Amino acid sequence: MPLLRLLPRRAWAALLSQLLRPPCASCAGAVRCQSQGTRDLSPQHMVVREKILDLVISCFKRHGAKVMDTPAFELKEILTEKYGEDSGLMYDLKDQGGELLSLRYDLTVPFARYLAMNKVKKMKRYHVGKVWRRESPTIVQGRYREFCQCDFDIAGQFDPMIPDAECLKIMCEILSGLQLGDFLIKVNDRRIVDGVFAACGVPESKFRAICSSIDKLDKMAWKDVRHEMVAKKGLAPEVADRIGDYVQCHGGVSLVEQMFQDPRLSQNKQALEGLGDLKLLFEYLTLFGIAEKISFDLSLARGLDYYTGVIYEAVLLQTPTQAGEEPLNVGSVAAGGRYDGLVGMFDPKGHKVPCVGLSIGVERIFYIVEQRMKTKGEKVRTTETQVFVATPQKNFLQERLKLITELWDAGIKAEMLYKNNPKLLTQLHYCESTGIPLVVIIGEQELKEGVIKIRSVASREEVAIKRENLVAEIQKRLSES
Amino acid sequence: MPLLRLLPRRAWAALLSQLLRPPCASCAGAVRCQSQGTRDLSPQHMVVREKILDLVISCFKRHGAKVMDTPAFELKEILTEKYGEDSGLMYDLKDQGGELLSLRYDLTVPFARYLAMNKVKKMKRYHVGKVWRRESPTIVQGRYREFCQCDFDIAGQFDPMIPDAECLKIMCEILSGLQLGDFLIKVNDRRIVDGVFAACGVPESKFRAICSSIDKLDKMAWKDVRHEMVAKKGLAPEVADRIGDYVQCHGGVSLVEQMFQDPRLSQNKQALEGLGDLKLLFEYLTLFGIAEKISFDLSLARGLDYYTGVIYEAVLLQTPTQAGEEPLNVGSVAAGGRYDGLVGMFDPKGHKVPCVGLSIGVERIFYIVEQRMKTKGEKVRTTETQVFVATPQKNFLQERLKLITELWDAGIKAEMLYKNNPKLLTQLHYCESTGIPLVVIIGEQELKEGVIKIRSVASREEVAIKRENLVAEIQKRLSES
Repeated sequence: MPLLRLLPRRAWAALLSQLLRPPCASCAGAVRCQSQGTRDLSPQHMVVREKILDLVISCFKRHGAKVMDTPAFELKEILTEKYGEDSGLMYDLKDQGGELLSLRYDLTVPFARYLAMNKVKKMKRYHVGKVWRRESPTIVQGRYREFCQCDFDIAGQFDPMIPDAECLKIMCEILSGLQLGDFLIKVNDRRIVDGVFAACGVPESKFRAICSSIDKLDKMAWKDVRHEMVAKKGLAPEVADRIGDYVQCHGGVSLVEQMFQDPRLSQNKQALEGLGDLKLLFEYLTLFGIAEKISFDLSLARGLDYYTGVIYEAVLLQTPTQAGEEPLNVGSVAAGGRYDGLVGMFDPKGHKVPCVGLSIGVERIFYIVEQRMKTKGEKVRTTETQVFVATPQKNFLQERLKLITELWDAGIKAEMLYKNNPKLLTQLHYCESTGIPLVVIIGEQELKEGVIKIRSVASREEVAIKRENLVAEIQKRLSES
Repeated sequence: MPLLRLLPRRAWAALLSQLLRPPCASCAGAVRCQSQGTRDLSPQHMVVREKILDLVISCFKRHGAKVMDTPAFELKEILTEKYGEDSGLMYDLKDQGGELLSLRYDLTVPFARYLAMNKVKKMKRYHVGKVWRRESPTIVQGRYREFCQCDFDIAGQFDPMIPDAECLKIMCEILSGLQLGDFLIKVNDRRIVDGVFAACGVPESKFRAICSSIDKLDKMAWKDVRHEMVAKKGLAPEVADRIGDYVQCHGGVSLVEQMFQDPRLSQNKQALEGLGDLKLLFEYLTLFGIAEKISFDLSLARGLDYYTGVIYEAVLLQTPTQAGEEPLNVGSVAAGGRYDGLVGMFDPKGHKVPCVGLSIGVERIFYIVEQRMKTKGEKVRTTETQVFVATPQKNFLQERLKLITELWDAGIKAEMLYKNNPKLLTQLHYCESTGIPLVVIIGEQELKEGVIKIRSVASREEVAIKRENLVAEIQKRLSES
C-alpha cells in the first residue's frame, strides 16, 4: 500500500499542529468563568458572535433552508445510545416527577426525532442553538460545557450525492466568507471505514469501538491510537498495523480510483459502494468549483454512532505566524455526514428518512476571530447608538427628554445621560468612549433661536440647524456615512 | 375612599376578560406538543417569531442597549429565595457530581449575578433567551415549560425616575410597533403597595404573602383573592376589606395627588416616597408623549420578591370581535419594575447597584399574531429563496449545478431539485408552492445559443437573456421587486 503525499506541506503542518493545543486565553478579561464550566457572554463577545452567526445563517438561507427550534431538553430515552462512547457526558435533569429528561447533546438527534414524530419526509432546515456536554472542565483549553451549534441538514430521498455535495459547498462558502485563512475538508465514507476494518481483519463486534479510536487521530499520535486499540480494545497487533497502512492515505479523486484497485478493499461490497459514491461526489464538487479544497482521507472516522455514509471534517491550515501573533491551533471547524438510519430509530414502524448535514464549529471560530482582534488591537462597538442628546446648561432635562423623544419616534438610535445636570465634557467624553458619531446640543440660546446644534464627534465641527429640520438632517448624515 | 372609574369602558372589559381565558389552539397543526410540556417550533412558528423579535431588539438597540447572554443553568443557590411562592417551579439538574445546578427561571437574576460577579456598576443591556418553569402542564392554555423572554434593564445610580420612564417609553414603542391594538400600562410602586398594607393593618410578616395574593387579581375575582387572604393566609376580614377599597383605585396623575391626601396613606413614609416618585414619573411620561397610555393602578402588585420601587404591567385592551374572529384574551404582554436590592444579594460586601427593567411577554405576542394570521388565512414564506434553477430536459444535472454555483457565488438565494431528471412541471410547481419568484431555465437550445431563460412565476412571462448577463439581470429584477 503506497503512502500518498498529495497534500501540500502546510496541510501536514496543520494536521500536526492539532496535536499541540495551546491554552485558551478567552477566559481572561471582563468575563469570569463560572465554576460549573460555563461562562457568561459579555457584549464584546456577543457582538463578534452575532456577526459570525449572521454570515453563517445568511449562507444557510442562500441554500433555501428553513429555520426551526426544539426544546433544550429531550426525553432521556431519545438521547441514549446515539453518541457512542461520549454518552456519559449527557446532563440529566433531576427526577422531580414526570418523565426523565436530559439536556440536548447536539441538534441532530432532536431533528431526527422531530422528523419522525411529525412524519416529515423531506426538509431542508438550519438550527442555531445551545447544546450541553459534561466534559471534564478543561476551560483552559477553550472547551465549555455549554456551547453553540449551527447545523444545516437535508432530509429526504433524493438522487445520490447531490445534497451531500451541497453540504460541502456550504462549508466552503462559510469558511471562505469568514476569511479564516486557507482550509481543507477531509472526506471519507463510513462504509469505506468499515470496509477497511473488515479487510484488515477487525471482528465486526469491534467496528464502532475501533472507529472511535481512529477518530482520535486528529488529537493523538498513531502510536497512542494503536496502543489504545491493541491494549484497551483487544485488537491483534497485526490487524492494527494493517489499519495503520490505510489511515495514512489521503488524496484527491485519483486516490478513490486507486482504492477501487486495492486487492483487499475491492473484495468488500460496502466499501465499493462508498467508493462509487465518493467518485460521484468528486464529480459534483468539481462542478461546484471546490474539488481542490477536498481531500479523501482514510484517517477520518468521526466518533458519532449514527453516520452511515459520507463523512467530512474541515480543518484550518496553519498560516505562517505573524510577529507577535499566537499560532492558532484549533482543529476541526466544521464537520458532518450522512445518517440514513437515525430517523427510523424514532419511527414506530421504523420508516427511514435519509439525511445528510453539517455543523459549523462556531465556538472555535468565535475564539479564532476574538484572538485575532486581540492581537490586532481591534475594538468593536457594543452599541449602535447614532446620536447623543446633550446640553451645556443646567435645568435642561425637560428639553432633552422632548428632543430625544423626537429622535426615537423617528427611528433614530439615541441616548442621553440619566442625570438632571450633567457636565458638557462628561457628555462628550461618553460619545468618544462609546463611539457615538453625532451629538445634538440644546441650550438656552438654541431654544430661543429655534435651532439645534449638530456636532460631529470625529471632526468636532458644529453647525446650527432649524429645529424642524433636525430629523431630516440627521437621517441625511447617517445615510451618507 | 372613593371608587375611581377614570378608565374607559374597554379597559374594564379587558381586565374582566382576563378572568376567562379560552383554550389555546396553537398545539394544533404540524407541531406536536411533547409530553414533558415543551414543544418544537416549526419553520412557520419561527418566521413569525423572528419578525417579532427583530422589532423588539431594534427598539432595545434604538435606546442604546448592549446585548449579553448567560448560561442556561446557574448554581442552584443563586436562584433560591428570589421568586416568592413560585420557587418550587424551578428545574433542577441531577446531581452527577460537582455543584448543584438549576435551569434559569428568568433573565433578571442571572443579570444581577453577572453585575455583582464582574463588579459592573452601570450597564444598559438586553437579553433574549429561553427560561424554564415547571408549571403544571396546562398546555391547552398556551403556557409551556420552556419559553422565550426578552429583557431590557438599566443598572446604575442615576437621578430618579429617568431610566424608569425610559422603560415605559420602550414598552409603548414596542407595543405600538407590533400593532397589537390598543393597550394600557398599569403602574404602581412596591412602597405604595406596602404602605397600603401597613395603612390597612396587615402585619409586616405577611406583606409578601398578601402581595402575592393581590398579584392574582388579574386572573381571579376579588372575592376569591379575599378568600385566599382571609382563609389561607389568616388575614382579618376587616383588613382584607380595607385593602379591597384601595385596590379598586386606578387613574392618572390626579389619583397620585389624591393619594397624597389619603388620611391613612399620607402617614406612611415609604408610601409618600413612592407617590413622590410616581409624580415625577408622570412628568417625564408626559414629555415622552405617553402619559395617556399609563394608569396608576393600586391593584398592581407583581408577584416577584425582588421589586423595591416602581412596578408596571402592560395589558392589551379588548377590541370588538370581528365576525369569525376568536376573542383574544391574553392578559399581560409586558411587565417590569425597579429592583434596587438584588445585585447586592450577590455581592460579598453587599454593595448595591440599583436596577430597573422590563420584560416583553413575547410568547403571548407570538400567540396573538399567529391566531390573527390564522383567522385571516395569511401565509408566510418559510424560505427566502429568490431563484429556482430548472431544466425541461433529461441529463442536464451538470449544467444545473454549474448554473446554481454561479448564482450562489454571486450571493443569490437559489434552489434546485436534488434529482437527475425532474419533470419541468414538478419544478414549476415547487416554485409556486414555496413562493419562489423567479425561475432560470436551461435546456439544449439555451446551451447552444448561450442564453438562459428567466421566467417570472407570477406572470409566467419568459425572456431569454445572454448567459453572461444573467447575474446582473437577476440582481436588477430582485432590487426592483
